[in-house]
Amino acid sequence: MRKVIFDTDIGIDDAMALLFLHYARNVELRAIVTGFGNASIDDTTRNALYVSERFNIAAPVYRGAAESTGTSLFDSYPDFVHGKNGLGDVDIPHISATQESAGGAQAIVDIATANPGDITIVAVGRLSNVANALKLCPELPQLLRELVVMGGAFGFNGHRGNVSPVAEANIAGDPEAADFVFRSGIPTTIVGLDVTAQTTMDDDFFELLKNKAGDAGQFIFDISRHYLDFHEQHTGRHACAVHDSSAVAYLLAPELFTTRDAGVRVVSTGPAIGQTIWSDPEVSYQTGAWSELPRCRICTDVDSAGVLDLYRKTLLSAVDNS
Amino acid sequence: MRKVIFDTDIGIDDAMALLFLHYARNVELRAIVTGFGNASIDDTTRNALYVSERFNIAAPVYRGAAESTGTSLFDSYPDFVHGKNGLGDVDIPHISATQESAGGAQAIVDIATANPGDITIVAVGRLSNVANALKLCPELPQLLRELVVMGGAFGFNGHRGNVSPVAEANIAGDPEAADFVFRSGIPTTIVGLDVTAQTTMDDDFFELLKNKAGDAGQFIFDISRHYLDFHEQHTGRHACAVHDSSAVAYLLAPELFTTRDAGVRVVSTGPAIGQTIWSDPEVSYQTGAWSELPRCRICTDVDSAGVLDLYRKTLLSAVDNS
Repeated sequence: MRKVIFDTDIGIDDAMALLFLHYARNVELRAIVTGFGNASIDDTTRNALYVSERFNIAAPVYRGAAESTGTSLFDSYPDFVHGKNGLGDVDIPHISATQESAGGAQAIVDIATANPGDITIVAVGRLSNVANALKLCPELPQLLRELVVMGGAFGFNGHRGNVSPVAEANIAGDPEAADFVFRSGIPTTIVGLDVTAQTTMDDDFFELLKNKAGDAGQFIFDISRHYLDFHEQHTGRHACAVHDSSAVAYLLAPELFTTRDAGVRVVSTGPAIGQTIWSDPEVSYQTGAWSELPRCRICTDVDSAGVLDLYRKTLLSAVDNS
Repeated sequence: MRKVIFDTDIGIDDAMALLFLHYARNVELRAIVTGFGNASIDDTTRNALYVSERFNIAAPVYRGAAESTGTSLFDSYPDFVHGKNGLGDVDIPHISATQESAGGAQAIVDIATANPGDITIVAVGRLSNVANALKLCPELPQLLRELVVMGGAFGFNGHRGNVSPVAEANIAGDPEAADFVFRSGIPTTIVGLDVTAQTTMDDDFFELLKNKAGDAGQFIFDISRHYLDFHEQHTGRHACAVHDSSAVAYLLAPELFTTRDAGVRVVSTGPAIGQTIWSDPEVSYQTGAWSELPRCRICTDVDSAGVLDLYRKTLLSAVDNS
């Protein structure tokens, strides 16, 4: 069983990734830590509590960062992607579940400290919470088993940025946090647009979930309407890239991904703000900025059919087992 | 006839490009403007005068920029690439030729003003001179026919930076100048590492020049020894990429190159300093930094055999015609 903290700015595809984790057989979800990003911290925390309550997810919900560590590319929330409430503007009823009293960063530290070498963080929003946890606990790199990040764009497979030619939204929303985390030595795998944009879910896929994956399928169908419309405006296809769930897929089945080791820096200002840059550890440059970077693992290619198959099977298994 | 100003920090491959221009049939070389970069401004100007005198190049030599517009990635000259004298440490005898009294940037302005719509600048060093000329004469974009730049790296064909994972040396040596020039509206074609590193000259190529291209061939053979040794250390092959001469090849035979239109920004600080970033003019981003950029033409692929063939034929024609 992989013990997982899910760090998320829920979010349509975040909610889909949360259900993917929840129904995965070999995952023990220990905590949900929220962050601002796809919506405000109030909305993402409410969304985490709502999804948890509706689907009987036992993991406690910790409220995390409300703002970025340094300069962000953004000055507003992307309601044109995720809707005003962050869940595609579906009705969200009254929730009786409540968040924990501890903050998100402290929860990461406490859980990692209580389970040394055992905790994997799957972080699918901005890296503010992980950066804040590192500041609270500089030993965090030695305590965590792994950090799997959905974020960044490295230029593989022709995929570039989605909020600038070179920047991806999660990283661009808190570039300083990301640079700090990627240089910290936490064993990190980065699942960027290079692979997440390679995998798409289309109308047939969502129809299948709706018809065969019970209430989870219906929920995913409902929240995805807004998201698919946004994607259609940009790509001409009523289908969406699989961002956050690709990070979960990496956790569950890393063999579906091709990876390489790389030093990673994040640009924190100027036109390239939010860009993730990889450096080959075997190449040295005259300038020192690229030497002595800890090695991250970055995803360079993916078996997209395998990811879709794993998602579908996992969600359908929820019904089979209920 | 293309009327050309050659803006150059001579430099081994700059000298090869100068001879390429000199012996090209349809080029009228109107001026050589020097800049610092591969060596100091004193050395590059001396080298320009030496090559001009040795090969009876009639174009006047103007001394250009001695320092960068803003922050540079470098604090020294790359003598490990071009030798201490910038020409592979071959003996340089006493020169009687002298530079013009006007400065390089002023010369660009004067020649462009006297020949409106007729002048092409082939710039194979830092863009300091062109930036300075733009400051002296904001109408320069309307006066020039074209600017062909050797510089930058856009990530096509798997080629990245040569002085950082994302930066190329000419641009990294004066990023502010490059950003200013690429945003100026000068009709610009950028010949970056994406294509220059695709084309290589090997021992057989240099032997052929030495044996069949007269004194020019002997000179190219002599200065290239140091350069090839440097390349061999990094690539394991005693062969060199064709950087500056690829810009000349584009001038002479643009049909050898595949290009696309793009807005181009240059990063002037931080880990990505010197990076050239292209933006698809058809894609709009939430943030405004990428809108309303003038269109540059960037090279995305090249017929390498065609470039080598053109260089060889042009240099050999010098002997045939002498």
